[in-house]
Amino acid sequence: MTQRIFNFSAGPAVLPVEVLEEARDNLLSLGNTGIGIMEHSHRGKAYMAVHEEAEALCRELAGIPDDYHVLFLQGGASLQFSMVPMNLLRPGATADYLVTGVWSQKAVAEAQRCGQVHVACSSQDRSFSYIPSQCQFSTHPAYVHFTSNNTIFGTQFAAEPETPAGVPLICDASSDIFSRPLPIQRYGLIYAGAQKNLGPSGVTLVIIRKDLVEAGSRDLGTMLQYRTFAEDHSLYNTPPTFGIYIMGLVFKWIKQQGGLAGVERLNREKAARLYQYLDQSQRFRATAEPGSRSLMNITFVTGDAALDEKFIATAKKAGLDGLKGHRSVGGMRASIYNAFPAAGVDALLNVMRDFEQQAS
Amino acid sequence: MTQRIFNFSAGPAVLPVEVLEEARDNLLSLGNTGIGIMEHSHRGKAYMAVHEEAEALCRELAGIPDDYHVLFLQGGASLQFSMVPMNLLRPGATADYLVTGVWSQKAVAEAQRCGQVHVACSSQDRSFSYIPSQCQFSTHPAYVHFTSNNTIFGTQFAAEPETPAGVPLICDASSDIFSRPLPIQRYGLIYAGAQKNLGPSGVTLVIIRKDLVEAGSRDLGTMLQYRTFAEDHSLYNTPPTFGIYIMGLVFKWIKQQGGLAGVERLNREKAARLYQYLDQSQRFRATAEPGSRSLMNITFVTGDAALDEKFIATAKKAGLDGLKGHRSVGGMRASIYNAFPAAGVDALLNVMRDFEQQAS
Repeated sequence: MTQRIFNFSAGPAVLPVEVLEEARDNLLSLGNTGIGIMEHSHRGKAYMAVHEEAEALCRELAGIPDDYHVLFLQGGASLQFSMVPMNLLRPGATADYLVTGVWSQKAVAEAQRCGQVHVACSSQDRSFSYIPSQCQFSTHPAYVHFTSNNTIFGTQFAAEPETPAGVPLICDASSDIFSRPLPIQRYGLIYAGAQKNLGPSGVTLVIIRKDLVEAGSRDLGTMLQYRTFAEDHSLYNTPPTFGIYIMGLVFKWIKQQGGLAGVERLNREKAARLYQYLDQSQRFRATAEPGSRSLMNITFVTGDAALDEKFIATAKKAGLDGLKGHRSVGGMRASIYNAFPAAGVDALLNVMRDFEQQAS
Repeated sequence: MTQRIFNFSAGPAVLPVEVLEEARDNLLSLGNTGIGIMEHSHRGKAYMAVHEEAEALCRELAGIPDDYHVLFLQGGASLQFSMVPMNLLRPGATADYLVTGVWSQKAVAEAQRCGQVHVACSSQDRSFSYIPSQCQFSTHPAYVHFTSNNTIFGTQFAAEPETPAGVPLICDASSDIFSRPLPIQRYGLIYAGAQKNLGPSGVTLVIIRKDLVEAGSRDLGTMLQYRTFAEDHSLYNTPPTFGIYIMGLVFKWIKQQGGLAGVERLNREKAARLYQYLDQSQRFRATAEPGSRSLMNITFVTGDAALDEKFIATAKKAGLDGLKGHRSVGGMRASIYNAFPAAGVDALLNVMRDFEQQAS
């Protein structure tokens, strides 16, 4: 088999080798069933066990209490940008959004189709290079929405924003979910496309407090109401069975790493080594401001677009793929989600040091 | 490896062994990229080639002309039940639905949230055991919608229904798409969840005429408009990359079977042998009326629920899985989609003959 290289892609992203190997071994027959994992009926015993285990492991890892549903949807975070306000923003009401990058802007645009949006804070004044420390909330927001990690600009909330008492906090956690312990009870709803920290693209994890399911609009298509998924255990129609299977394997792998606290420790170590190097480098600099820096997506530049390109090509030759920054901002981005190995960070540091020496 | 058994599941359903083997070999590294198929960025060259090949093969197999888009969506046919009327049924307008089973009833229910629905025909009077030969259309329907194959009741349209000139014909073809040649130009829009004839669950194929994309409502969430997918080549957000990859492999496999005409011949042979046996059996009988019978889902009963159960258990012991009829109708159902091997039909016939002899 071809040797695996270091994949810094921002998503779909690297998955744990153990997960891929287990999936590979079950592709033609799930255990001894004689039927591959993708081919099992979603109503059959074999798949039901997979489905239930994925939910149980998710609940165990994050300590999700009984008053929250764990749902498996489709359509990615982009569909959630619409589903959240369609379900929870009544005409005439206002929702507050914290704008810290492109994904929050997209979420705002979808909410504006449904009702009033109040921007409680924005870091657009400095190219989204920081997380604002203060918010100005509206009087009675229906909810407060934020994006916990910003893949494009390499920033991340260090902790949940302070919000008005009794107002549901809603989070797009696509790019940092389960990278650290999650104080679920601070949230009304958390959603995440799987393709960064949880699995393949095509499955969206939604953790939602039961009262918000009940409060959701009933005037929507069946597949656009959270209650449809809550009432039928995400089995109203055929769910993305293979994606949920992989997610379950990833949950099991996270558990083996010491759970969310264990992966947080590993993530902090990986990111710290990169930022420490960047902060003393004469050639590279991190683009996100200290205090706002992401542990998942480390964005950096040389300050010279041509040199950036040369570095990306050099790294690629050394077996480091996906380091090109998002097409909207350029530069470099090292996405080092849970499953990204520490050895890949070492390899990147070596290439950066070599490049710095040769270019100086 | 565990020996594979015969999987008669109605969906997710059996996939070609060649497809599963190729996927297995690319799970840890797509070709020599060193990155598994699920882990490739959807914006990278390797995945883009997969994406474009899947579309190209789809167009080639069905002879899809340039005035149609081929789109990869999520949410299954159930989301299409809503998206079709949300996009194409304006307030005050009427859409005509042919009601031939549970799935068309669900499609009607979602359309009624958006506008007027006229039921142009229904076979509910005889438990959906036939396809009506006549329809009464409304004066100026926005479109005519039908379900080409009914998994639960084992019926199938032998050909497209006759419809008023100039009215777009829309089809839920989830359970028989690409099982026979498809006269695309008869249709305005065809949609299909992949998990029966095309791939794993979690990806929905939509073939839509360009004027219908343009006619679609602009007052919907971005992810609920067909134009979003049409404009960005199904890459507005991260698509279900693995599902699209598998779909591409299935298209390649269909091509190797002689294309849609080739699989139709195989499908007709498989189904004919089962119906011939059923029509002369003293123990079993087919539930769908001749002339309306599905080539994909062969539904049958003994007439005695206890005996049905005994037969299902007997077949299961012989390595034939998934023969239990849908929970709403009972009896037996042999789902024999494109990828279901002829040897499995032989095996089923043997078990039925043995059972008939022993029970008589």
